[in-house]
Amino acid sequence: MSDYSEKIAITTGDPNGIGAEITIKALNLLNLPSNNIVIISNSKVLNNYGKLNNDYEIIEVDFDGRIEQGCVRENAGDFAFRCLQKACEIKPKYIVTAPTSKEAMNIAGHNYSGQTEVLEHFLAHDGQKAEMLFVSKDFRVLLLTRHCALKDVSKTITKEYLLEKIERLRSYFQNKLNIRKPSFALCALNPHSGENGLIGEEEQKVIIPTVELLRERGINITNPLPADTLFADGIHKYLNNETMPYDCYIACYHDQGLIPIKSIALEKTVNMTIGLDIIRTSPSHGTAFDIAGKNIANPASMIEAIKTCMY
Amino acid sequence: MSDYSEKIAITTGDPNGIGAEITIKALNLLNLPSNNIVIISNSKVLNNYGKLNNDYEIIEVDFDGRIEQGCVRENAGDFAFRCLQKACEIKPKYIVTAPTSKEAMNIAGHNYSGQTEVLEHFLAHDGQKAEMLFVSKDFRVLLLTRHCALKDVSKTITKEYLLEKIERLRSYFQNKLNIRKPSFALCALNPHSGENGLIGEEEQKVIIPTVELLRERGINITNPLPADTLFADGIHKYLNNETMPYDCYIACYHDQGLIPIKSIALEKTVNMTIGLDIIRTSPSHGTAFDIAGKNIANPASMIEAIKTCMY
Repeated sequence: MSDYSEKIAITTGDPNGIGAEITIKALNLLNLPSNNIVIISNSKVLNNYGKLNNDYEIIEVDFDGRIEQGCVRENAGDFAFRCLQKACEIKPKYIVTAPTSKEAMNIAGHNYSGQTEVLEHFLAHDGQKAEMLFVSKDFRVLLLTRHCALKDVSKTITKEYLLEKIERLRSYFQNKLNIRKPSFALCALNPHSGENGLIGEEEQKVIIPTVELLRERGINITNPLPADTLFADGIHKYLNNETMPYDCYIACYHDQGLIPIKSIALEKTVNMTIGLDIIRTSPSHGTAFDIAGKNIANPASMIEAIKTCMY
Repeated sequence: MSDYSEKIAITTGDPNGIGAEITIKALNLLNLPSNNIVIISNSKVLNNYGKLNNDYEIIEVDFDGRIEQGCVRENAGDFAFRCLQKACEIKPKYIVTAPTSKEAMNIAGHNYSGQTEVLEHFLAHDGQKAEMLFVSKDFRVLLLTRHCALKDVSKTITKEYLLEKIERLRSYFQNKLNIRKPSFALCALNPHSGENGLIGEEEQKVIIPTVELLRERGINITNPLPADTLFADGIHKYLNNETMPYDCYIACYHDQGLIPIKSIALEKTVNMTIGLDIIRTSPSHGTAFDIAGKNIANPASMIEAIKTCMY
């Protein structure tokens, strides 16, 4: 087998969505040297959506049946899944994944709540877990909880949970970004960081004691800070092209972290999977079945996803 | 008693904070005709922080003892409270309130969780309730819950609760802004609006049925929408100086509504109290005891608070 350990593998996602289209558009606009890239897809799918300007290596994955733009189909879900599997098998340096349909993968018998979990299934060893980071330039947000009902967030964030997640975040910064002592800003769970227990007790009872433990372990992390003013300050600097005050923001829940980063960098936000041996990036949008095949999809987030692997 | 029914009454807040300083700076920069404005304060306090360029009417409120910049003091809290009381008594068209210290008011025996509740105490009649709106130009956000622990948000938002709050919001738009059929965007409580019950059931069980009822009552309101993409779209338009797609965003909880508006308009965000006979506006920051008396306070938010009353 060839050596892909320095390459970026790109999967084109669900063949009935915008994945192949934005992959072709992004690669043509970026005009990267062809020896850095390997595309994991099927020529029939690629040719249906456009023409690549450069002569990139393509690893062919079987695709049976028809392309049916905008439709949730079993053959498409199965193909998308096998592309991810192949990407893991060849052990590249990075994997960039165009959007898949969770529903189509499920119909095809692959019951995962997303691509992150598929990659975790194939790549994790020795207790590794995948974490989701959202990135736009040097503005980075880790979600402590992802697809968690709001009322369950509080009980999910235990001391052990926090310790594990934040230790994994530190490892990523140290081992992959070579930042020895990254600075983390921790969002409070409650408004005004709980106002000393008046508005929720989690800060006093769980979060602050855990932060103290993390500091004893050498991690540079703030006390839980009111998220509205914390992000307002960071975004002010982001919009003025200043250096971000922290290497990473840690949000307690989905909307707390995604509202600020998507608000100012919707098309440029990259979804990143860390914690596994291979870093994965992905655009922050979905398959966009409603505009599939119309050649109007915007490749901006896909471009950022690929660029993030080239720093 | 004089007739203040067409005037803007301005209280200068806690005399040990930045309230009087930003009031003077804001009025001098705005250079408003003096017949529109009445200041409710004390000349000793005002003179301590600067000099007004115009000859505004000042209603004197007794202030005993010393000004102690940056300190939480009983006499200061009592003075701030009596200024608010006086502002309600004279029945102006608008009240603009510079920041007070909740702690100082409490020490002085006035146990309210904020100025909003003081105004509600003096002004509400016939079951009126105060609602908090955050406003920057035509970007408006209503908070369904304010200082509520995150884990309690879900159980607070009942059908009756939603109906009452959103009816009050409509009345404000109809009666005060003369917008007959305002458009409201409702944020989902859960990520991805609950994904049909997979991530929380509140949308299906409570929120959507209530939205249908509100529509039957003639209210123009969306289904609960994922808050991250909803605000990303609105903010994109805000930053491009386009018309906002909705007259008001309705957020389920504090951070969901304040992260987006403060992120892009920190200094220009105005806190507005609606639902009472008199509209009240206020800067969105606090007393800033740490910089009190240094003449470095930024009056931008106070300027916006006054301007909001002049549209």
